[in-house]
Amino acid sequence: MAETKRIFTFLLRFIAFCTTLSAVIIMISSRQRATVLVFSFEAKYSDTPAFKYFVIVNAIVSIYGFLVLFLPPKSLLWRLVVALDAVFTILLTSSISAALAIAYVGEKGNPIAGWLPICDQVTKYCNQVKGALIVGFISVVLYMLLFLYSLHTALNPLLLEKS
Amino acid sequence: MAETKRIFTFLLRFIAFCTTLSAVIIMISSRQRATVLVFSFEAKYSDTPAFKYFVIVNAIVSIYGFLVLFLPPKSLLWRLVVALDAVFTILLTSSISAALAIAYVGEKGNPIAGWLPICDQVTKYCNQVKGALIVGFISVVLYMLLFLYSLHTALNPLLLEKS
Repeated sequence: MAETKRIFTFLLRFIAFCTTLSAVIIMISSRQRATVLVFSFEAKYSDTPAFKYFVIVNAIVSIYGFLVLFLPPKSLLWRLVVALDAVFTILLTSSISAALAIAYVGEKGNPIAGWLPICDQVTKYCNQVKGALIVGFISVVLYMLLFLYSLHTALNPLLLEKS
Repeated sequence: MAETKRIFTFLLRFIAFCTTLSAVIIMISSRQRATVLVFSFEAKYSDTPAFKYFVIVNAIVSIYGFLVLFLPPKSLLWRLVVALDAVFTILLTSSISAALAIAYVGEKGNPIAGWLPICDQVTKYCNQVKGALIVGFISVVLYMLLFLYSLHTALNPLLLEKS
């Protein structure tokens, strides 16, 4: 039973690692050159601080997720993992919220502020950003599950005594 | 000792309640009429979905924070509070990140997307939004502390046996 649970969380962590890494790759590779009237410009993630923040956080969580995969089951560091899962879940949530808020303005614009939607001009770029956000959202959900699971394991006094 | 800790967390929860409530009030009351060329417009929080989200989350957390103040110390619901603190910390983080991302565009603009900064036209509105975000940031930090504290209390087996 304990073995099944271990394999299950290992798989969950592996998928979470894949999603954060994919989010970074998709976001970084999103760039498109467009010409509006006489102005030519290149839309890329690094122009928007919120997208840069999204990439940095997902990259850090990818490295963390990769390292945790190789942590031995009996290691005392698993107690630290509860806290780190919490920190990284919060960071992922924060980064995807910021990126979503900006992507929403890119898609719909904000008429009162006079910010026009740009997705009609750079459709490919927008779709790629959307893809990165969807993958990022899956990773947030996975990290929330992982955090709840490690919290549950740590909170359960019976499991606590066994370890 | 236990009494001092209880008073301390009560105070922390009371301050957290005050900050979330203030964030709601400051954000809701932020509106300014401005005229640019021949166009007259009113900047208010409800034009921006990210600010609406910020207000809704802070209002929900205010109600939660108010109710928790009256929870008796021996109540079994304190175990639920650990989980709710986690959920609301994540929601607060998410809402302030989204609002910050939009406020940053309002202040600095985004030259590549052609979004002009609007804070020169509606300085009062911008300052009030900034105020709400600062108060909101304090409440995020307080809820993180409260969550860490309730997690610590729940994780500590000695405290667990005592309760």
